[in-house]
Amino acid sequence: MNIIIGQSGGPTAVINSSLTGVAQAAIKLGAEKVFGMIYGIEGFLEGKIFDMTPSLQSSVDVELIRRTASSHLGSCRYQLPSPSEDENLYRRIFTTLEELDIRYFFYIGGNDSMDTVLKLSQYANAIQSPIGFMGVPKSINNDLLDTDHTPGYGSAAKYIAVVMKELVRDETVYNIPSVTTVEIMGRDAGWLTAAAALAKGDDCEGVDMLCLPEVPFQEDRFLDQVDRMVRERRSMVIAVGEGIRWDDGRYVCQKSGEPRHTDSFGHINRNGAGRDLASRLNRALGVKSRCIELSVMQRCATHMVSLVDSTEAYQVGTAAVKAALEGHTGELIVLKRLCSDPYQCITDYIPVERVVGKVKKLPLHWIQESQTAMTKEYLQYALPLIQGEFPPFYVDGLARHIHRD
Amino acid sequence: MNIIIGQSGGPTAVINSSLTGVAQAAIKLGAEKVFGMIYGIEGFLEGKIFDMTPSLQSSVDVELIRRTASSHLGSCRYQLPSPSEDENLYRRIFTTLEELDIRYFFYIGGNDSMDTVLKLSQYANAIQSPIGFMGVPKSINNDLLDTDHTPGYGSAAKYIAVVMKELVRDETVYNIPSVTTVEIMGRDAGWLTAAAALAKGDDCEGVDMLCLPEVPFQEDRFLDQVDRMVRERRSMVIAVGEGIRWDDGRYVCQKSGEPRHTDSFGHINRNGAGRDLASRLNRALGVKSRCIELSVMQRCATHMVSLVDSTEAYQVGTAAVKAALEGHTGELIVLKRLCSDPYQCITDYIPVERVVGKVKKLPLHWIQESQTAMTKEYLQYALPLIQGEFPPFYVDGLARHIHRD
Repeated sequence: MNIIIGQSGGPTAVINSSLTGVAQAAIKLGAEKVFGMIYGIEGFLEGKIFDMTPSLQSSVDVELIRRTASSHLGSCRYQLPSPSEDENLYRRIFTTLEELDIRYFFYIGGNDSMDTVLKLSQYANAIQSPIGFMGVPKSINNDLLDTDHTPGYGSAAKYIAVVMKELVRDETVYNIPSVTTVEIMGRDAGWLTAAAALAKGDDCEGVDMLCLPEVPFQEDRFLDQVDRMVRERRSMVIAVGEGIRWDDGRYVCQKSGEPRHTDSFGHINRNGAGRDLASRLNRALGVKSRCIELSVMQRCATHMVSLVDSTEAYQVGTAAVKAALEGHTGELIVLKRLCSDPYQCITDYIPVERVVGKVKKLPLHWIQESQTAMTKEYLQYALPLIQGEFPPFYVDGLARHIHRD
Repeated sequence: MNIIIGQSGGPTAVINSSLTGVAQAAIKLGAEKVFGMIYGIEGFLEGKIFDMTPSLQSSVDVELIRRTASSHLGSCRYQLPSPSEDENLYRRIFTTLEELDIRYFFYIGGNDSMDTVLKLSQYANAIQSPIGFMGVPKSINNDLLDTDHTPGYGSAAKYIAVVMKELVRDETVYNIPSVTTVEIMGRDAGWLTAAAALAKGDDCEGVDMLCLPEVPFQEDRFLDQVDRMVRERRSMVIAVGEGIRWDDGRYVCQKSGEPRHTDSFGHINRNGAGRDLASRLNRALGVKSRCIELSVMQRCATHMVSLVDSTEAYQVGTAAVKAALEGHTGELIVLKRLCSDPYQCITDYIPVERVVGKVKKLPLHWIQESQTAMTKEYLQYALPLIQGEFPPFYVDGLARHIHRD
């Protein structure tokens, strides 16, 4: 019995823990060969498949895979056509799987990627193929429905909170009124922007304001609030979700007439809201302003990983193997929180169609009435997810990775 | 006998190690009180002086100061007028110093900040004041003359190299031709951009090209090189120094007619070269491009500190105290490398006028003939400076700092 694993969508800092979780559990439970798809299902369709079993022999190599930035197997943003549009494609996929004696197919991804698991498992069902298809959750954006959180979110949140504390100290170093906007990822939900709220504590005054995608952006109100705060505090840090929108639904970053890159799921590149707000502040209030974009460091900073997140990412991988061997297919492993204090979380599974193409927004009651800060309930939710460290192996001064051959 | 310490110019990740180095050595060698200037000499002139001796009682607090991001005392970019322009100011400064019974004045800063040490020590000499003035070097930019390197450079270089390795992995995750430009600090010298070369190793293909401020930027040549490389490699990472210039001396980031912020030393904000090159590439070659700015994280990422750097930053602080007590004044502590392998470095002192207002550029013979990569000599120079880690104290999932009251 062989298995195959793919990684899809944007990387997370712990996506390779899920990869090794699946791979090691499969071998323990009797798999002979573990295949990897290079560049997800898109690479699979081009025959980019390799036997990764030899690379799993050394336990040091496995630990290095876990500590390697970005998706070790490569990734894609590719939407399969439906079988009615191109049944030939599905025949090809299943022929390849059968040729390689693959019994289980694991796909590590978010709400878009689960579309692949859904379509393949439905087709398998239609043709009565015994091959099982399981989804393994990942997303820095934490926007999957029906799971307490997604592996990847905790480490991104930890990175954002740690860097925010540093930026707050940097911002206040000169005795000059100034505003720094910090642009944070999150296409349609403010989960990552909310994580900036974790910076506040005994030792840090925290971020002064959050601009969340869940709250329609009102320029006048925003300028008034900043003006008041700059007068009081001299310098400010504002966390800006890249996906903030005007009342009418247009993205703040979207200049009229400007062409935007879109991916195969039709998602637009949202980059630019932080810079936009910084220059609005400079023009309207005359205050010194700058924008810092946390950019893809949010998803690839394997030098700043939450131990809880890394552990759970591994666990959802092993749980997917266990579920597959028990006969589950077309399902996604999810996390169910039993308790926040002390934190306890277990794995469960749901049909993938419950998450495909859907976005879990930040609950509005976790946003304070001011609409620019998070409530205690959010902090109680998020804090357990950033606990503990899972540091890199440093060799000759640098975080060591492993390179796929 | 009392002493006073100030921090000036841009922060580094280890500037607070120099602060605690001075403070602890002074107390050990008999100082009763250690005063801190809040916001450097600018704050001093406004009476912003506090007794930091109580905060040095707890050794845990001292370790937290070392691990706190940005300049713990606050900083300034302020140039003193000369005594002939405003002798009153100097009289006020020395009256304050005498009132507080201050015998030694330590100023932690770079080439601009040393102007303050120069002017005050010259004035002290002229009025036969016994007060000693010592400079303690710091700069992420490594651009001080007459020192092997500056404390702060090693940690910034380590941050850049570690993040670059992560960005290289992130860049190659999709099977799509694309170019990422990564904008790196360095007003007039390419020391930090060069550090991106450290990313290359057995486990990382490294950065594909460096654009250094020392090399006049030629657009045609640049586009040709990128075009060729993208065809070969599909995806590329380019490290871009913020201070790159055209043949005629204009900065690449400088749009004609656009107003620029300048500081009191007349330095222009150089931000924008990376974005500029990314959009040139997109327009000229039609390749998908993006820009990542490492921004102030380069100077405030106390979560990624080199142990060698942190240790040396502490040592230059203690050496400054020792030198001051031996009667040195108007001098700057420097680092002298005895050997690169095994690495050995000692402290020495030079008259501050040797560095004031001057910039140490990257030696041109350390740039490869292609002008887009560094030689082995540079790597041998830089590698010892990023060795070892000096991690934060993590409390409740976050790097702990200490807040100046």
